[in-house]
Amino acid sequence: MKDRMDIWVIGGDMRQVKLSEALSDDGHSVHSFALEKGQAGSGVRQEESLAGASLADCVILPLPAEGEGGVLNAPLSDSRCTLEMVFDALQPGQVVCAGKVTPRALALAAERSITLRDYFAREELAIANAVPTAEGAIQLAMEELSITIQGCRVLVLGYGRVGQATASRFAALGAKVSVAARKYADLARAESVGLGVEQIGALREWLCGYDLVVNTVPARVLGEEELSALREGCLVIDLASRPGGVDFSAAAALGVRAIWALSLPGKVAPVSSGRYIRDTIYNILRELGV
Amino acid sequence: MKDRMDIWVIGGDMRQVKLSEALSDDGHSVHSFALEKGQAGSGVRQEESLAGASLADCVILPLPAEGEGGVLNAPLSDSRCTLEMVFDALQPGQVVCAGKVTPRALALAAERSITLRDYFAREELAIANAVPTAEGAIQLAMEELSITIQGCRVLVLGYGRVGQATASRFAALGAKVSVAARKYADLARAESVGLGVEQIGALREWLCGYDLVVNTVPARVLGEEELSALREGCLVIDLASRPGGVDFSAAAALGVRAIWALSLPGKVAPVSSGRYIRDTIYNILRELGV
Amino acid sequence: MKDRMDIWVIGGDMRQVKLSEALSDDGHSVHSFALEKGQAGSGVRQEESLAGASLADCVILPLPAEGEGGVLNAPLSDSRCTLEMVFDALQPGQVVCAGKVTPRALALAAERSITLRDYFAREELAIANAVPTAEGAIQLAMEELSITIQGCRVLVLGYGRVGQATASRFAALGAKVSVAARKYADLARAESVGLGVEQIGALREWLCGYDLVVNTVPARVLGEEELSALREGCLVIDLASRPGGVDFSAAAALGVRAIWALSLPGKVAPVSSGRYIRDTIYNILRELGV
Amino acid sequence: MKDRMDIWVIGGDMRQVKLSEALSDDGHSVHSFALEKGQAGSGVRQEESLAGASLADCVILPLPAEGEGGVLNAPLSDSRCTLEMVFDALQPGQVVCAGKVTPRALALAAERSITLRDYFAREELAIANAVPTAEGAIQLAMEELSITIQGCRVLVLGYGRVGQATASRFAALGAKVSVAARKYADLARAESVGLGVEQIGALREWLCGYDLVVNTVPARVLGEEELSALREGCLVIDLASRPGGVDFSAAAALGVRAIWALSLPGKVAPVSSGRYIRDTIYNILRELGV
Repeated sequence: MKDRMDIWVIGGDMRQVKLSEALSDDGHSVHSFALEKGQAGSGVRQEESLAGASLADCVILPLPAEGEGGVLNAPLSDSRCTLEMVFDALQPGQVVCAGKVTPRALALAAERSITLRDYFAREELAIANAVPTAEGAIQLAMEELSITIQGCRVLVLGYGRVGQATASRFAALGAKVSVAARKYADLARAESVGLGVEQIGALREWLCGYDLVVNTVPARVLGEEELSALREGCLVIDLASRPGGVDFSAAAALGVRAIWALSLPGKVAPVSSGRYIRDTIYNILRELGV
Repeated sequence: MKDRMDIWVIGGDMRQVKLSEALSDDGHSVHSFALEKGQAGSGVRQEESLAGASLADCVILPLPAEGEGGVLNAPLSDSRCTLEMVFDALQPGQVVCAGKVTPRALALAAERSITLRDYFAREELAIANAVPTAEGAIQLAMEELSITIQGCRVLVLGYGRVGQATASRFAALGAKVSVAARKYADLARAESVGLGVEQIGALREWLCGYDLVVNTVPARVLGEEELSALREGCLVIDLASRPGGVDFSAAAALGVRAIWALSLPGKVAPVSSGRYIRDTIYNILRELGV
Repeated sequence: MKDRMDIWVIGGDMRQVKLSEALSDDGHSVHSFALEKGQAGSGVRQEESLAGASLADCVILPLPAEGEGGVLNAPLSDSRCTLEMVFDALQPGQVVCAGKVTPRALALAAERSITLRDYFAREELAIANAVPTAEGAIQLAMEELSITIQGCRVLVLGYGRVGQATASRFAALGAKVSVAARKYADLARAESVGLGVEQIGALREWLCGYDLVVNTVPARVLGEEELSALREGCLVIDLASRPGGVDFSAAAALGVRAIWALSLPGKVAPVSSGRYIRDTIYNILRELGV
Repeated sequence: MKDRMDIWVIGGDMRQVKLSEALSDDGHSVHSFALEKGQAGSGVRQEESLAGASLADCVILPLPAEGEGGVLNAPLSDSRCTLEMVFDALQPGQVVCAGKVTPRALALAAERSITLRDYFAREELAIANAVPTAEGAIQLAMEELSITIQGCRVLVLGYGRVGQATASRFAALGAKVSVAARKYADLARAESVGLGVEQIGALREWLCGYDLVVNTVPARVLGEEELSALREGCLVIDLASRPGGVDFSAAAALGVRAIWALSLPGKVAPVSSGRYIRDTIYNILRELGV
């Protein structure tokens, strides 16, 4: 990877602002477009048009790249710009990195011989993002519970990346953590780091033993029956992306406190999230030999 | 200690409400007075007068027991009651446990041959309270910082009970934690658990290396000079009781974010705080042979 | 899975002895054969012939099942027995669980319509076995090094199951641990739990910074060039299975202390290893509906 | 403290050898005497007489300074030398640091106006030494037990410096650790870091629930009655200095494996132990204004 690159950051939220600053701090020449309300530091050159983008070593689009109707996702800008407009400003062979790339975007890039890579599809970014997600869950639990995390009985549903990051952090703070999962290997993994384990099948039978339930499984695991088995005052935090794992209307009807916490990385730690994206883009560029 | 006692909880805040519930859950016969807005659970008998208090095995007063002007500290009550009134309702030889007992309260109790003990002066309560204090500091840091605790460079000033609880928890969440203290033994203790150490004397020289500074020393350690040495965006959390360790007006003038977080246990975890007081009172009663 | 089963444990080392005891402690009727020198507890029935094995709900063969020449692996027995002899004593449809099953064994079982499953191929067993492997590495390091693990600079090569278990345990004891791996996702995983990371490519450049190098990669990563870059007194522990990752003759020539630690689970914790095999066999039986 | 000092290290074991090397590595001019079999590195000047010692900024005696009969403790030397001989070689006002200073040694020093300080009496050294002591206990447990530390049920008797270092390290490796202590504050401290607690009074009643008992209390806590309450196969490690806490003859009669592990720091980690002594001596010299 080249030491000094010309990089354009186009559209996005505070993560992209922080990403542009992090790239500039690394010594790259960084231009931003459609991010004007984000007020990036002085090292980032705020551009009014896409004119110079055709000279960029790398163009970075937001996460997700497209908002509704195929428009560039640019909540920090008044300008309204389409993906086509961005791609049309580039040359064949240029490298574009974007998050949650759609088939439509891939097609647009292919037509123009642009190399489009999805940083959000990279495992290293998913692993990194699990950290602020887990920290966000801890923050919510601290804000909502009237007991300490120390000694709190926590059940984590699912033991993938987010489940692991969450369970280990609650345990590190002294909570008594159990993990419920379907796969024997996941249960063995949880046991090997000293966590309790429960078979996810018989959920209802032992749900009453917990002060906090954190779901990471993107499937309806906590329906009315399960929610009514919770002890009084138990808090439910759902970290699973759509459709989520909790029947929130049943929770409301039963008086169960349930919080659906989506997209935590950008909310609780935009600076770290921007750095994770930067690191992932560096990896992509190294692989592409830029 | 007797298995079933008659206990009166008189005055106080949510911790006393939760304390009364915890005592009731343990099978004791619990009466509350001057706590009516706290809405304790059904097991606690809300009394309208102090008439029956003379039969109590133990009477529990709040933390602190007295508000301004020697009045009973009872923010959850409309009644206005003095310590004298409470003590006058008791018999010689009865046991009263209170928090932050003043010489005046001790004299009042002595005149009436009442056994008055200060639970807040007990080391086990101070140790227990360090946990919600540390958790409160973590919650504040999570709310205020735009980076994750993981990887955050944290400096903890002082390494007593609160300093130890705070430093170890930040480290458990992956922060890079250093401790600054004056005593060689404290520095050795911090090193023996893998923390970095700094001599507190030369504070200014290396303060710039931290994203978060948590003070636990109840003396002015962060004056204008030190505060101006902090890196931009550094957060300061002061956990020290009055007079605190931070020059907050200098911080305001310098644009340094500084938060004075007092009395965290009762705020962030009233239920746990109530239990700690209960456990401490049990220890006192065991020692008294009640 | 049935609550009370008839189980035969045939051949093997101390792990099989401990496995048979663990099964007996769970209430099963357990028979052992070709394990006589292991002196299992009184609950295990030591058999002199395979006559009754045809009635077993499950037959358990060792890890590996076969020694040289296709003979049953039975170091704790004077009897010499072949796999064929064992299979011939069984009926069609019976369930046999064995470790490191060869194609030859699979064929023998298939000819007899015996259901043969390999417990060593199961991920949950590999995960569980990583724990005693990591603990064995710690024990070796403690025995060999004249410094404490606390503060020791440890490099872990590879970040699979064993690498993760090893790195996290050294870090938990206060070592300064870095991980070298090839995949970006592995490096991100190591960073997300607070470990240092190094790109495995440029090994030689920073090998000199470590007091201990633990290899888990089953490929020659530490050749003469790398070994000569180590600092004086650095210890090398190789946990990788054959062919291992260290050039041991180069190490000897260079005077580098290098230990090839193979098959640690059975050596350092035979009782735990037996239990892991038991748990894995239960999982297999549950899936088979036994 | 001066950057370059003239230091004499006189007598002692491998810790003193490593101490002399560590001092030399820091740039001081280091002389050794009565340590000749220790073969310190080339930076340390091995002296044949005490002639030059009167010019030293600091003279370091071993731990303990005296062997039987008031002779200098010098197991790595053939020379036989008394404390008097050492002190007679010095001038009034010189600084001597020694371990476990006796009243006799203090008197000898006072007669000659020599400033004698006891580094072993310093709290920072006791805290530092708790680390290799705890690591030694872990090593012994790993060597002796046939189960993993992960999941092992460990009871730590006493919660002072060594108890804390030991309990936290076993817990960090995934053991289920309980602490038994007499003081409520110690129990609260153990609870505040997530350990289980037991009242040390009723020891016999729940001793049967542990796989490993580590004693740190220097008083007979494990007599015949307690030892006979242990479960079969339970290991006992006694870390308490003389008279120790275990009735070893009763243990032998009962067939209980009990190990008295004394002076672990010098045995398991002489290099680290030497560094701890160096750091403590630096602290002493700083306080003396040398």
